[in-house]
Amino acid sequence: MQKKIGRQTMRLSRPPAIVASACIGGKQEQEGPLAGWFDELSGDGFFGEKTWEKAESAMQKRALSRALEKGKLAPGDIDFVFAGDLLNQCIGSSFSLRHFGIPFYGLYGACSTMGEGLSLAALLLDGGFGVTAAAMTSSHFCTAERQYRMPVPYGSQRTPTAQWTATAAGCTILQAGGKGPAVTHVTCGKIVDKGITDANNMGAAMAPAAYDTLSAFFQDTGTGPDDYDLIATGDLGQLGHEILCDLFAGDGVTLGDNCTDCGLLLYDRQNQDMHCGGSGCGCSASVFNGYLLAQMREKGWKKLLFAPTGALLSPTSSFQGESIPGICHAVLIEAQS
Amino acid sequence: MQKKIGRQTMRLSRPPAIVASACIGGKQEQEGPLAGWFDELSGDGFFGEKTWEKAESAMQKRALSRALEKGKLAPGDIDFVFAGDLLNQCIGSSFSLRHFGIPFYGLYGACSTMGEGLSLAALLLDGGFGVTAAAMTSSHFCTAERQYRMPVPYGSQRTPTAQWTATAAGCTILQAGGKGPAVTHVTCGKIVDKGITDANNMGAAMAPAAYDTLSAFFQDTGTGPDDYDLIATGDLGQLGHEILCDLFAGDGVTLGDNCTDCGLLLYDRQNQDMHCGGSGCGCSASVFNGYLLAQMREKGWKKLLFAPTGALLSPTSSFQGESIPGICHAVLIEAQS
Repeated sequence: MQKKIGRQTMRLSRPPAIVASACIGGKQEQEGPLAGWFDELSGDGFFGEKTWEKAESAMQKRALSRALEKGKLAPGDIDFVFAGDLLNQCIGSSFSLRHFGIPFYGLYGACSTMGEGLSLAALLLDGGFGVTAAAMTSSHFCTAERQYRMPVPYGSQRTPTAQWTATAAGCTILQAGGKGPAVTHVTCGKIVDKGITDANNMGAAMAPAAYDTLSAFFQDTGTGPDDYDLIATGDLGQLGHEILCDLFAGDGVTLGDNCTDCGLLLYDRQNQDMHCGGSGCGCSASVFNGYLLAQMREKGWKKLLFAPTGALLSPTSSFQGESIPGICHAVLIEAQS
Repeated sequence: MQKKIGRQTMRLSRPPAIVASACIGGKQEQEGPLAGWFDELSGDGFFGEKTWEKAESAMQKRALSRALEKGKLAPGDIDFVFAGDLLNQCIGSSFSLRHFGIPFYGLYGACSTMGEGLSLAALLLDGGFGVTAAAMTSSHFCTAERQYRMPVPYGSQRTPTAQWTATAAGCTILQAGGKGPAVTHVTCGKIVDKGITDANNMGAAMAPAAYDTLSAFFQDTGTGPDDYDLIATGDLGQLGHEILCDLFAGDGVTLGDNCTDCGLLLYDRQNQDMHCGGSGCGCSASVFNGYLLAQMREKGWKKLLFAPTGALLSPTSSFQGESIPGICHAVLIEAQS
């Protein structure tokens, strides 16, 4: 069987199954419409720790621990874990994983990390390099604001195009030969940079990457948007989602009601004042590992196309006048009959 | 064939070959003993750019371009590239790859990145997901000093245990069924944290991780240090290398003259005043892609065990009193007869 189909897409020959998943969230997530799908929610955002960075690390620890419990697995059962986050040097991931003793490959894919981790975990299992693997990521509103923008107590005004970084973590456990929805295709994204320089408009910066990866996926697989029960991009938010629809419309392709964005799902944008919606690695990670996988089971969906997007900028690159490179990694999850 | 052997090691069934490699360096590298093995050296460290961060990105661009040239390949021939670096949000990698149009998986493994990228590229090729892949990383003395310590013009005193972050980049191109030394085994590291908190003593923080991964490799493969022409750890430097030897001595295992460290090779420590030696992702990446692969060819080595180490700290984690988690990813390169 040809595993590589087209330039960017890989078809798995023995699709590993999602045997467990977990998600953890904070205060805004607790007040949002998806609260019921979280495994744990912390009202104060500190998760029992003294700093926000340690809290973010604690979230990943809890997400992995809960996923292991739900899958009736021990850390020693996990062949390898892929994890990363938005913090400088990805300390959310490395400090959370310190005491688990699981072989670890660290990632940096910004808000595309959940898609990147799922992709690589699935590919290695399909390649026969292990039986069970985990993929994990997180973000925290307060660590992200402090690092990318201003410390929260400064009370910065947010622009209308701004999105709200989720305080959330998600973890997926995949198993070769396991029972559950399986990862059947993976599309590796290319960096796309259309010259957007406004760091408060990530949706616009990332939409062309989502368009690029989804177009490649449709072309490589010979399918179209209507072939999927749901297409969920990462954190494009309202404006980015509209741009994505416009880009496809230019090709004569209509993205219908079966295409949404995790940043549009996590919060009640009217009543929670979230401007363009949610963002951050933890947004798509928690929406996927909670709500989306549950919907897939409950509604009997056959095919879920999950395509988180990341903006690969840093405060330094923006200070130096650089535009914002985007990337999107897509993963097709299919129900096993 | 069983691909997973032991807890951490994977044996490749169709080992992909290293068909091309390239390395780029700056002023100190130009004045060091390995200068002759670099493809390009820039005396001013700016590589034609206006900022150090852009210079670091330019180094990766040059490393990939030179490796492609040497392998007579075009960007469109590369199925995927794995890259990462030390800069916040890994902008050295993402900005360098913006214009190549190669499917990209971003990594964060600190100074273990060359080992991590080689591992994952080899595993995906062995899994049949592509034919040709690249792994790449970089570091830059001035970007690292500014980000982790003090801006260079401040003129900080360096401690005796300090290492010198290399201004260098390295790129390896692997090909399934290609000619050249091949990646036959990969050992995925676990995070090891023995409580070292001195961010100026990275060697001590990372040595236990090197010990852990190399021990796992020897155990999983049923071999010992004497079975290899050379074992080259990443950037432990003088002190870390001594600690590694001590840790093995505690098990009754002697690491002999065939065990060295890339941080001990890159500079003339007596005359270049490099204290404990070189460090940074670019150190092991340039030593491996230049000097070590050349030695392997020229000296007819059969087996080179390359084991770069990373310290997964950030300035924020150190400010918050945290110790330094280390990781080491090992890759066995064998000559193909």
